[in-house]
Amino acid sequence: MSEQYDRYLEEHEQDHLEALFELLRIPSASALPERQADVRRAAEWVAKRLRALGVPEVELLETERNPVVFGHWHVDDHQPTALIYGHYDVQPPDPLELWETPPFEPAVRNGRIYARGASDDKGNLFAALCGVEALVRTRGKPPINLKFFFEGEEEIGSPSLGPVIRANREKLACDFVISADGGMYGPEQPSVTLSTKGLCACQVNVRTASTDLHSGQYGAVIANAVQTLAQLAATFHTPDGKVAVDGFYDKVRELTPEERAEIAAVPFDEREYLDSVGARALWGEPGYSPLERAWARPTLDLNGIWGGFQGEGVKTVTPCEAHLKITCRLVPDQEPEEILRLIEQHVARHAPPWAEVTVERFPGSARPFAIRRDHPALQAARAVLRDLYGKEPLAIRLGGTLPVAEVFQRELGADMVFFAWGMPDSRVHAPNESYRLEDFRRMTRAYCRYLTALARA
Amino acid sequence: MSEQYDRYLEEHEQDHLEALFELLRIPSASALPERQADVRRAAEWVAKRLRALGVPEVELLETERNPVVFGHWHVDDHQPTALIYGHYDVQPPDPLELWETPPFEPAVRNGRIYARGASDDKGNLFAALCGVEALVRTRGKPPINLKFFFEGEEEIGSPSLGPVIRANREKLACDFVISADGGMYGPEQPSVTLSTKGLCACQVNVRTASTDLHSGQYGAVIANAVQTLAQLAATFHTPDGKVAVDGFYDKVRELTPEERAEIAAVPFDEREYLDSVGARALWGEPGYSPLERAWARPTLDLNGIWGGFQGEGVKTVTPCEAHLKITCRLVPDQEPEEILRLIEQHVARHAPPWAEVTVERFPGSARPFAIRRDHPALQAARAVLRDLYGKEPLAIRLGGTLPVAEVFQRELGADMVFFAWGMPDSRVHAPNESYRLEDFRRMTRAYCRYLTALARA
Repeated sequence: MSEQYDRYLEEHEQDHLEALFELLRIPSASALPERQADVRRAAEWVAKRLRALGVPEVELLETERNPVVFGHWHVDDHQPTALIYGHYDVQPPDPLELWETPPFEPAVRNGRIYARGASDDKGNLFAALCGVEALVRTRGKPPINLKFFFEGEEEIGSPSLGPVIRANREKLACDFVISADGGMYGPEQPSVTLSTKGLCACQVNVRTASTDLHSGQYGAVIANAVQTLAQLAATFHTPDGKVAVDGFYDKVRELTPEERAEIAAVPFDEREYLDSVGARALWGEPGYSPLERAWARPTLDLNGIWGGFQGEGVKTVTPCEAHLKITCRLVPDQEPEEILRLIEQHVARHAPPWAEVTVERFPGSARPFAIRRDHPALQAARAVLRDLYGKEPLAIRLGGTLPVAEVFQRELGADMVFFAWGMPDSRVHAPNESYRLEDFRRMTRAYCRYLTALARA
Repeated sequence: MSEQYDRYLEEHEQDHLEALFELLRIPSASALPERQADVRRAAEWVAKRLRALGVPEVELLETERNPVVFGHWHVDDHQPTALIYGHYDVQPPDPLELWETPPFEPAVRNGRIYARGASDDKGNLFAALCGVEALVRTRGKPPINLKFFFEGEEEIGSPSLGPVIRANREKLACDFVISADGGMYGPEQPSVTLSTKGLCACQVNVRTASTDLHSGQYGAVIANAVQTLAQLAATFHTPDGKVAVDGFYDKVRELTPEERAEIAAVPFDEREYLDSVGARALWGEPGYSPLERAWARPTLDLNGIWGGFQGEGVKTVTPCEAHLKITCRLVPDQEPEEILRLIEQHVARHAPPWAEVTVERFPGSARPFAIRRDHPALQAARAVLRDLYGKEPLAIRLGGTLPVAEVFQRELGADMVFFAWGMPDSRVHAPNESYRLEDFRRMTRAYCRYLTALARA
């Protein structure tokens, strides 16, 4: 059986790559207003492809900006329904001068496809479609019920995602979500993703006077905003690296011994890790390994600070204002709004009487996401990867934030299985983004096996 | 006797103002390369004026940039020699659009002369010369030996001052220096200046990685430069406002009970002071009054801080570098270079192992200056002011730094008596700088009395 779809994929690889290159040539950068027509063109291209594939229901779900390409192929009431998620928009390509070949003229060299979106997410999205195609062409129809949901706003933070899902709850109902956006631990190391972190953001503003002052006249008498903010900023962590905001860890799900063992099984070379970022030493919350911290422990990050004189040389000023940017990476069951409230309480408690200190909340909060390790769709993914690579997949977690997983979970009650082939060296969001041909082949074949494995007997 | 020079000054006031306006029309802004010819023109104007006054020896002492106008009138071996200091260069006039009348077209309104340099320092310098002139025209010669030293680089930090004094030690030898650059406590409140603060400057640089990092991937594992710097910046002071650098206060001369009583006699309205700068509360080293702190206690001032993301909204970055500007205001007997060494030691002691932390010293250090309260030339100034205003002069100190006083003290062993009429509302260095006609009159008369009082019987 598997030989059939593998042979189909082999025979049609050239056609598939040519079709992918068509999609990659459309500069659908959602952040650029001048590319709105191209973004829509990419949506229409994907919709047309779904129709060509034989998907009976295909439509564009309109949003305030870019449409969601939706498709539905119901094959059997007895079978589960999977919704395949991906996005057809891409990051802007600049800085253009750093690209070896133009970002929207896909080129193959060294066994890789180079283009903006080659990996994130057109390459991955299209590989999933090729897998479905191979199943359909060799068996007549998919082995389970499929829904397709390809958005065009992922690279601008998916502002329409929640609204469009809420407005189409019944249409989108499914048993679980398969994300064709995501990655593997490494080229020869498959993995499944158990969780992603949440996010919340704010800015602390300090004012101590109405104008910058002469440090000789006022430095000994009027508070300095930079000094005040530095002292406040220093209160957010203990010297050994724990977050010192009261209640910050209260809702954190502690790692089980089983989870810690699982993480400990993931190779981690400290020297190599430090060298890769040019750091002297590791840092962070005591009591947890580096991977435990990166994957399963929350952080409070000071993203930026500024105040007073920043030029060359000397200016003898007592600054009257200073600012601090903060984001937190959250883990289950921390709530972004509650964490912001705790930060506000912390600031109120530590703000000195001589300064006006405010906390400004930013939009864009995201809840953390986690999938049960015994979820059948995750187990199936694991088995397919084990079979395909001939080795056990790692169970990994993402320190980053992918709000979509949590949104589907919250709005549809459907857990997400990440099943995609982004690689650590794909250079997504950067010049010379690429996708290994080998990974494209693996992903198409993996989707055939995975969708087949998800079918009930 | 005094009536003679007062009458002379009254009769010649119009001539004197016209001459001053000539000098004010020369745009001798030493910071502007395109004004170098005007700076020299101002030097030549002042030299010509000294010659017209009858000063026997007048010359330009050349430096690497702008000449010092030097004059010498020896009258009697039995008399002391005073060197009168001032400067003929001015600050640049911008922003021009904020001037009510053009900066280099002097205008009189509301009893004030408006022009760049009207107070700082052409008006004060020229008033001193008018005083000398009145003495000379009514008595034939000055009552004491006089040297004149008018530089053209004060507004760019007097870089040639030390070298030109060292190269002309014998020529410049004197018993004390009278500065025609300086100010009074208020329009109706005369004062003598007992001290000015010294200065030293440096920058602390923190690096934790070779590039900014993704806070989701690295925030829990690699140190954050902004957080590291904030925690370091917070160590420079105790929570209650003392400088926490070991040894910082070791050389500080403690105020005597007499000095504290003297400072306590100076009126200080806390509410008015706070309102004038838009501050909520006073701040600073415990155990000292606000004026004690501003005048006689050293400070360590954080002039600026920056690192990471400073734009609008959110960027989830773990910053790899951050920077802090520091200056200290020093009091006798603190040494700038020693204080910088203490800061370096403090930083080395508090720098964490995960960061590369460097301290970059800046040039422009200045030693603090103080004059003995029983110095005869200071006592004479006090008596003249008491007589002229009919009230006791305040003994004040400057929180700011005037390196010239310390340079004369160090290079010539000559103490400086500030005897000039800048006022808190003169708007020096700002648009609409002005000099009260009343102060011009007072200063000319004060110089007649002061030089006379300095003569030995």
